[in-house]
Amino acid sequence: MNKNKIVNDPVWGFIQLPSGLAADIVSHSYFQRLRRIVQMGLSFLVYPGAMHTRFNHSLGCLHLMKEALDTLQEKGVLITQEEKEAACAAILLHDIGHGPLSHVLEHILLPSVPHEAMSSLMMQELNAQWNGRLDLALAIFNDTYEKPFLHQLVSGQLDVDRLDYLNRDSFYTGVQEGLVGTERIIKMMNVHEGQLVVEEKSIYSLEKFILSRRMMFWQVYLHKTSVCAELMLDHVMQRARVLLSEKQNLSGSPALLQLLSRPADQGLGEDLLPVFSAIDDSDVWMSLKCWAQSSDGVLRCLAQSLLNRKLFKSEMRSLSFEPSYIEEKKKETLSKISHPDELPYFFYEKNLSTKTYKFDSKEGNGIRVWLKDGRVVDLTTVSELLDRHFVMKADEKHLLCYL
Amino acid sequence: MNKNKIVNDPVWGFIQLPSGLAADIVSHSYFQRLRRIVQMGLSFLVYPGAMHTRFNHSLGCLHLMKEALDTLQEKGVLITQEEKEAACAAILLHDIGHGPLSHVLEHILLPSVPHEAMSSLMMQELNAQWNGRLDLALAIFNDTYEKPFLHQLVSGQLDVDRLDYLNRDSFYTGVQEGLVGTERIIKMMNVHEGQLVVEEKSIYSLEKFILSRRMMFWQVYLHKTSVCAELMLDHVMQRARVLLSEKQNLSGSPALLQLLSRPADQGLGEDLLPVFSAIDDSDVWMSLKCWAQSSDGVLRCLAQSLLNRKLFKSEMRSLSFEPSYIEEKKKETLSKISHPDELPYFFYEKNLSTKTYKFDSKEGNGIRVWLKDGRVVDLTTVSELLDRHFVMKADEKHLLCYL
Amino acid sequence: MNKNKIVNDPVWGFIQLPSGLAADIVSHSYFQRLRRIVQMGLSFLVYPGAMHTRFNHSLGCLHLMKEALDTLQEKGVLITQEEKEAACAAILLHDIGHGPLSHVLEHILLPSVPHEAMSSLMMQELNAQWNGRLDLALAIFNDTYEKPFLHQLVSGQLDVDRLDYLNRDSFYTGVQEGLVGTERIIKMMNVHEGQLVVEEKSIYSLEKFILSRRMMFWQVYLHKTSVCAELMLDHVMQRARVLLSEKQNLSGSPALLQLLSRPADQGLGEDLLPVFSAIDDSDVWMSLKCWAQSSDGVLRCLAQSLLNRKLFKSEMRSLSFEPSYIEEKKKETLSKISHPDELPYFFYEKNLSTKTYKFDSKEGNGIRVWLKDGRVVDLTTVSELLDRHFVMKADEKHLLCYL
Amino acid sequence: MNKNKIVNDPVWGFIQLPSGLAADIVSHSYFQRLRRIVQMGLSFLVYPGAMHTRFNHSLGCLHLMKEALDTLQEKGVLITQEEKEAACAAILLHDIGHGPLSHVLEHILLPSVPHEAMSSLMMQELNAQWNGRLDLALAIFNDTYEKPFLHQLVSGQLDVDRLDYLNRDSFYTGVQEGLVGTERIIKMMNVHEGQLVVEEKSIYSLEKFILSRRMMFWQVYLHKTSVCAELMLDHVMQRARVLLSEKQNLSGSPALLQLLSRPADQGLGEDLLPVFSAIDDSDVWMSLKCWAQSSDGVLRCLAQSLLNRKLFKSEMRSLSFEPSYIEEKKKETLSKISHPDELPYFFYEKNLSTKTYKFDSKEGNGIRVWLKDGRVVDLTTVSELLDRHFVMKADEKHLLCYL
Repeated sequence: MNKNKIVNDPVWGFIQLPSGLAADIVSHSYFQRLRRIVQMGLSFLVYPGAMHTRFNHSLGCLHLMKEALDTLQEKGVLITQEEKEAACAAILLHDIGHGPLSHVLEHILLPSVPHEAMSSLMMQELNAQWNGRLDLALAIFNDTYEKPFLHQLVSGQLDVDRLDYLNRDSFYTGVQEGLVGTERIIKMMNVHEGQLVVEEKSIYSLEKFILSRRMMFWQVYLHKTSVCAELMLDHVMQRARVLLSEKQNLSGSPALLQLLSRPADQGLGEDLLPVFSAIDDSDVWMSLKCWAQSSDGVLRCLAQSLLNRKLFKSEMRSLSFEPSYIEEKKKETLSKISHPDELPYFFYEKNLSTKTYKFDSKEGNGIRVWLKDGRVVDLTTVSELLDRHFVMKADEKHLLCYL
Repeated sequence: MNKNKIVNDPVWGFIQLPSGLAADIVSHSYFQRLRRIVQMGLSFLVYPGAMHTRFNHSLGCLHLMKEALDTLQEKGVLITQEEKEAACAAILLHDIGHGPLSHVLEHILLPSVPHEAMSSLMMQELNAQWNGRLDLALAIFNDTYEKPFLHQLVSGQLDVDRLDYLNRDSFYTGVQEGLVGTERIIKMMNVHEGQLVVEEKSIYSLEKFILSRRMMFWQVYLHKTSVCAELMLDHVMQRARVLLSEKQNLSGSPALLQLLSRPADQGLGEDLLPVFSAIDDSDVWMSLKCWAQSSDGVLRCLAQSLLNRKLFKSEMRSLSFEPSYIEEKKKETLSKISHPDELPYFFYEKNLSTKTYKFDSKEGNGIRVWLKDGRVVDLTTVSELLDRHFVMKADEKHLLCYL
Repeated sequence: MNKNKIVNDPVWGFIQLPSGLAADIVSHSYFQRLRRIVQMGLSFLVYPGAMHTRFNHSLGCLHLMKEALDTLQEKGVLITQEEKEAACAAILLHDIGHGPLSHVLEHILLPSVPHEAMSSLMMQELNAQWNGRLDLALAIFNDTYEKPFLHQLVSGQLDVDRLDYLNRDSFYTGVQEGLVGTERIIKMMNVHEGQLVVEEKSIYSLEKFILSRRMMFWQVYLHKTSVCAELMLDHVMQRARVLLSEKQNLSGSPALLQLLSRPADQGLGEDLLPVFSAIDDSDVWMSLKCWAQSSDGVLRCLAQSLLNRKLFKSEMRSLSFEPSYIEEKKKETLSKISHPDELPYFFYEKNLSTKTYKFDSKEGNGIRVWLKDGRVVDLTTVSELLDRHFVMKADEKHLLCYL
Repeated sequence: MNKNKIVNDPVWGFIQLPSGLAADIVSHSYFQRLRRIVQMGLSFLVYPGAMHTRFNHSLGCLHLMKEALDTLQEKGVLITQEEKEAACAAILLHDIGHGPLSHVLEHILLPSVPHEAMSSLMMQELNAQWNGRLDLALAIFNDTYEKPFLHQLVSGQLDVDRLDYLNRDSFYTGVQEGLVGTERIIKMMNVHEGQLVVEEKSIYSLEKFILSRRMMFWQVYLHKTSVCAELMLDHVMQRARVLLSEKQNLSGSPALLQLLSRPADQGLGEDLLPVFSAIDDSDVWMSLKCWAQSSDGVLRCLAQSLLNRKLFKSEMRSLSFEPSYIEEKKKETLSKISHPDELPYFFYEKNLSTKTYKFDSKEGNGIRVWLKDGRVVDLTTVSELLDRHFVMKADEKHLLCYL
């Protein structure tokens, strides 16, 4: 009988879990932790269906990676069994370093430790535990391997990461705008001189892919209400850090408190691993529930607001807010709080921006289209929709949140 | 412009959130807590997509309730605006008393407090806070109102609760077998002499509904692996209760520890409300993470196994296990643990059963079909598939789990 | 680049059209003719979306056949490239002998030529044109090949034909009750001693499959209104045959008229091929439009009724109609028509029946389940739902149609 | 019980068919004829699933019209029962004048009769038959009614026609790129000073709608292969017209031959109605089958090619073809045909273009967005994606087809 495990995935149907390295990664506590980290941060406060986790996303990526590699092999691209296994391992591990609520707290909990550094640390730890079985996977992940297309499938402007999360996030939020013709795009992938390319017939699907991503950014990921909630979460953590630095007594998740007690400028250290790898969303919610009873008014107010979804008002505009309007709102907010020093906790300004497509002069950085006449060109040179004028335009919006 | 809020639901599309009573319920902290309680307990350990919450389910029920009431009104059934609002309130509140992980811990945390009693307590508390605005909703919920069909929509063998959860759980698990023709069934609803009936044309959809439910039970809800995980969770909680009763020092969520310290035979009390209404899934996960470091071997082993999905072996059969086989497995288990007294924590026997359809002699207890000739009969008398022979047969299976 | 053609199928997504034999079959005019033959007869008069064709269905079967063969190969079943090609050819050709409107006119146009005989004739003709390239495909089709599982995939109680049409017909009618977990069932297929088997884990999906088929029969395929329309079409053809036998002048599709002029008891002949292979749905519609202007009242009435969907009244019951009721309806009908001899054209009685599952004493005729303990048994011996009591019960209904 | 008929639609689910005027229209032979006219012309030669009909589309439009009107009423827009009925009638009738294969033969069969003129003639005929019951529907259709938003729902840049066909065509072709957030867009509709507007929150959905339409044009509607097939069909009809004008004997559908025998410059006449309203796709296929046996080589070749999908080669480019390349291909084609005069039947050049959005200086011609600040502006002034630079750019492509 068939020894490979099959997992039901509501987005892609049946996902086959290969035995061997991939199975070992999935079984590891580092990977199981991803079950307790929600994929889309606080987006569920706006799109309540969005409760899926980094675990779901990572399995979805594994599935697409296998589909892509199978397609390439069918087209005659040489990929060994070891490379296949390593590419699958690399994509399974690409999100291993995420902290609670995915991106939300990235710069708050460990301000001096970039997310990628943490991922790298965890992969090295695994590789050490497993006596170098991840060497090839790490080479692919770090783009030092001789077949660049494998890295490009893991991380690039058309990687399986994006192909999964756009469809998955659309599926769980119910926002149809993000659906992408993933199956078609993957079937059109090919390799040309070692680089990942897509055949010309897929241009419309690629345009759709780029635009879906842009729409998901503005309609979902950067929705003013969830960004506002995330800023509130930022600030409740900052407040906790201040209180801890003042040696105030604070209840909450011990591991989270330990991170918040660390000096903000302290970088990566081996000591971080056991603490960090134990933290997940439950630490955040537990701490908020403790803080909702705190004697500190700022901490209490922010924690209660988040738990009960009594979010601050938020306004988003394409043009920047007039200074007079900002002053007016500041005054209003000041009139509602007990001390002017607390204003930064209750009044936020933020500029948001996203780039539809990173057009770059460096060769090989964009999406390469393989034309029927044999040339390989950047998507923007053949797409009438995505001309450079349009693509280089940075989208920017202005956000104001206040009590 | 339109004042009603619209929420995106991946299962039903756009759900309109009426202003007034329903909006107030949704905003209340009791209801917001449901965001942090997963709908399907530990099923996500088998069906990883199943991360949706009681919050999602309750909104889905609200949507179907409105669809059903609209359909009935279009057919000339008299329903006042107050009744509509109250029926919506009743369905929104029907799951308000759920504890962490939904049904899983129901009989462990508060062995002497039935789930329904807790729901009732919370509704009364809300009604008190709101000066009786929930009177009519409570009457519908408790089936004391003069229009029984309203109660039957909230709770019965064809209520909107089941119509939502079957489709929602199918959607998130990816198990197509559970999908039900909800839209069709609702369009066929009607009222006859005050009772909810379904028109004859819907018989095939009803058969499908009954069978889908049966299949979801065996394929999903009572899947041996998730039942095994739930038994493990039961036992880690029991172990914690024992340790607490022995005055041992235990870290973990304070609220959860408080519940576990309560005598098992203590019933409902007003003091329970603030503690219970603060507990959600994060308390369970936080506590398991603490216990995974415990000096007590049993507690530690169970907690680690659950966190890292190293579940016990499990076997499920239609026929009961032979005593000799049970003894053999017991011996095997004993050889792996440090003390024979601990066996109950590592070896479980359980009989599982489900009823496809509750056929009852009492009038009005089953699904009433309104025939074209004017008669109203029980579904089983007109369905060739669901004849009494089949329907009364209790499904039973036997489960054995061991380290 | 990839030479295989890819076709978009709304049901299964992208279908890869292999080059070689399969491509040649698809390009042949016999196969292209299937584009003009609707899959579900006159069902579109009840389910207007059901406009898909035998062409769509045949491509869908090809897709599932490849999925099944790939799965079996992955599990170590030996299948040569030639066998794969031949099995694909066999399934592509399995419906090649269908006449206009699929099954509807099967027994009317050529009463003495069974559908299978015509298919066989056409396959032999193709094989002759192609110098024996179809030899292996024909052996598989006729179950004379040494690997019976290949035939069982083409034609059996769990063949890819049924797996495609149940899902496809559900998809296009919008009747969710017919949806089947095809992907799961195929992934669970295996071969045991040369026979197609399904692994034990798929029992619930198989139950669902059997029951979906039963529901589709009663809810869709044997819907009283479309059966009534099909009886009307039968009778308009019979009337045309009578008029032609009386040497009356009749306009209409020449090829169709030629078939109807053939003696009813004349069997298969080589001369039939060019005529039959030119006929499709358009011959029927064109003829009906001509007949709607006929001077013969019966022909005209039936043709107009079908074109404009003014269908006769129809009643369907589980119990047979009382003779007195039948007489009453006959009298009513007689009062509306111009001559009593015409009654058979305007008054139909028919018994309809379907078998949920063909349970047979012959070994190997049912769905074989491969248990975890190594035994292979018939589905009905392990399914609690599909016990013999239930499965052997023949479903029967009685239909009465009248002007 | 409920008297309204319910129809299953695979795209929108259950469609309620109101009694009264709408039911009468659907029952009329003019409307039933639409069952025999495929929605997407010859697109099914590329996207085989696209077998849906104008009948399906028209019912879908009816459904969306009712959804839109219900939404507007809920928001307080005054719409009487008569207006509702009339708007539904108008949308049901908007495609009534379509000839066989929808748009394909529009300019060939009746070169001097615009499609709209034929629709208008048929509506007037119906209105006469029904003693003016369609007066209000016709006023809405012709935009002479005092509430312009009703006309805008029937025909405009955001009408229910487009909202249905984009989703329906996507659904049946399997091209996900065309899916549009119809439900959301409709829920955001409103009326401002008598004009149809959409609330600001829907901007992303509107952008998606505009871009989906553009993508569907290039990826599906103007796919080079189906346009090539349509040009071939054009030319086979032109050839038949020439042969008929030369008094050659031609078999085929009598009604179609009658139309083709009409002088090309003859306009609308009352005599046209009985002939035109009897023609549908079956006349085209029947005639092609007759012509495939013709003694005229051109007619025969084109007819056979279409029936058996042996289509001409086709090339599509953004830049125009170089004259030398065109000459080269001409020469190649000439070498394959029997007489140089026949070249126009075997060699086609065509420029294709589509406009993403019709931006117009006239007030009220575009999609009006109702901003939160109360202003109503054209979509292009608030969409960053659809700025005027982009939107005004006409998309153009060049097509070359040859034997």
